[in-house]
Amino acid sequence: MIRLSLDEVHQLAEAILRHHGFAEDHVQAVADAVFAGERDACASHGLWRLLGCIDTLRAGKVVPDAEPEVIDQAPAIVRVDARGGFAQVAFQRGVPVLVEKARQAGIAALAINHCVHFSALWAELEVLTEAGLVALACTPSHAWVAPAGGRKPLFGTNPIAFGWPRAGRDPFIFDFATSAIARGEIQLHERAGKAIPLGWGIDVEGQPSTDASAVLKGAMLTFGGHKGSALSAMVELIAGPLIGDLTSVESQAWDAGTGSSPYHGELIIALDPKRFLGDAVDEHLARAEALFAGIEDQGARLPSQRRYEARARSLKDGVEIPEKLYEDLRALLR
Amino acid sequence: MIRLSLDEVHQLAEAILRHHGFAEDHVQAVADAVFAGERDACASHGLWRLLGCIDTLRAGKVVPDAEPEVIDQAPAIVRVDARGGFAQVAFQRGVPVLVEKARQAGIAALAINHCVHFSALWAELEVLTEAGLVALACTPSHAWVAPAGGRKPLFGTNPIAFGWPRAGRDPFIFDFATSAIARGEIQLHERAGKAIPLGWGIDVEGQPSTDASAVLKGAMLTFGGHKGSALSAMVELIAGPLIGDLTSVESQAWDAGTGSSPYHGELIIALDPKRFLGDAVDEHLARAEALFAGIEDQGARLPSQRRYEARARSLKDGVEIPEKLYEDLRALLR
Repeated sequence: MIRLSLDEVHQLAEAILRHHGFAEDHVQAVADAVFAGERDACASHGLWRLLGCIDTLRAGKVVPDAEPEVIDQAPAIVRVDARGGFAQVAFQRGVPVLVEKARQAGIAALAINHCVHFSALWAELEVLTEAGLVALACTPSHAWVAPAGGRKPLFGTNPIAFGWPRAGRDPFIFDFATSAIARGEIQLHERAGKAIPLGWGIDVEGQPSTDASAVLKGAMLTFGGHKGSALSAMVELIAGPLIGDLTSVESQAWDAGTGSSPYHGELIIALDPKRFLGDAVDEHLARAEALFAGIEDQGARLPSQRRYEARARSLKDGVEIPEKLYEDLRALLR
Repeated sequence: MIRLSLDEVHQLAEAILRHHGFAEDHVQAVADAVFAGERDACASHGLWRLLGCIDTLRAGKVVPDAEPEVIDQAPAIVRVDARGGFAQVAFQRGVPVLVEKARQAGIAALAINHCVHFSALWAELEVLTEAGLVALACTPSHAWVAPAGGRKPLFGTNPIAFGWPRAGRDPFIFDFATSAIARGEIQLHERAGKAIPLGWGIDVEGQPSTDASAVLKGAMLTFGGHKGSALSAMVELIAGPLIGDLTSVESQAWDAGTGSSPYHGELIIALDPKRFLGDAVDEHLARAEALFAGIEDQGARLPSQRRYEARARSLKDGVEIPEKLYEDLRALLR
């Protein structure tokens, strides 16, 4: 393993992105995202992602200097056309308008269109909880997951994330795929020649399988049976056709086998507790704290707790990454 | 079994509610809800619910002539204070304002406060999909469900429902509890002396159990492990403190052991595809139809399909209810 300070993580990410011709606002925004993932020990959203970013660039599937267009769509809707760039800069441009609209109207939506998306939704939600807003986010991906009762890939891994601000504390945030497991987990099992648990996927015949390769050729399953499948369909609809953007099937068709990051849209909904509650806001947010205490007092954990613990460690000690990954990243600088 | 026409179902519901002193607007609105449940073969939301309605009234836990107050809270938020009445009339009063705000702002929220809630969320969402809106609804209930990793009841069965309008067809609607199963299912197993499957609940020691009585004394579990648990927490937060209303623990404390319907709030979010998409709305809604075809063409079913099939049958042939239930209902008229 190689130990890096968090500054070194950011600098390495910046250097790679700059070397490959990304415009400076994209360099900074994507480096911030990769930095946050590495810092919080979400390795799949950390430095490792840069390999995919550069692959996506080489496949011609991301615009490195895209200039997002912000569209004031309706009193409580802001759209940002990412124009084929990574989602981060589009998100940054949309956020001030979303926050302003949510504070004004009480609830508002940010629709990001035509973006290449690979980052964790929790990182985006933290920006909104820091502004005192409650927020929901979701996005389709590529069609890898069968609907409950079906046998063919149709849905993406379709994450849903939710954030709730907590005064003086890390926010309550969850962010999970509606697939039973991340696709990368199944790929890791395949590489290691290990069986996967039943429930992760089915083979091309639609039969439950513990064979990672058979499931990668067949279809993944959603978490939670027909309920998870219904939620996954909802993500396709509200972060796809509702915002005029691609479903996971359509995103995969656009990919044309290059294995790039999904190209599609994202929907973020922000709600302002101050507009819902007026002067009573502090009293009611305190009742939310009682709910969190009711979870923790019985030995259960809040979502993101592991992430916040990793963050505290990383801020003190930096992070460790595999030497092979470090070499692969250094190779991108040549 | 006793066969009733749908007219008879509505008349019987009306007669019982009127006999017990509900104001005429509540009589009609609650009868409509019970009628819809019976028509769609959702027996637990049909005529059977009237027994619970009258029990709740006798326990002094619902105001039979409550006059809801509509509050224009913010440009995109309408609140309705149900003033202790059943939720239906409050919902009816709030809907026109919600629809108007969603069409104006693009997205809007309806918060119903201080209502006694027992009806299916799908019935409410159908009103919004009929108005061409996409909608989400959720509500807490009583604290019966342990958080993932915990052992004590904290969350309600906390349903989440979603609706998507389809031109000339029944809407795409799902409506499910975030608990692994309805509490009534476990009670039915207890009465029949049957074991329940593992995964529905835990005993007071926090151990997985197939003993229905032990689970009713212990705690139910959420569907989908930590993901379902996270969603259940979200429902507590956004349909509880965010709208200034009770969590499932607080609602149960208010109930004080009377076994009444939960007293709390409900959050409904409506999104207008026309405001998101402008002139391109038809083109993109057609792409949603392609997603639905992708589900059905592989032999999977859309949610609510069984309900729509039951509806078609009931409209033609009426419904059948158990003779014992019919007698219990008739007894409420004496």
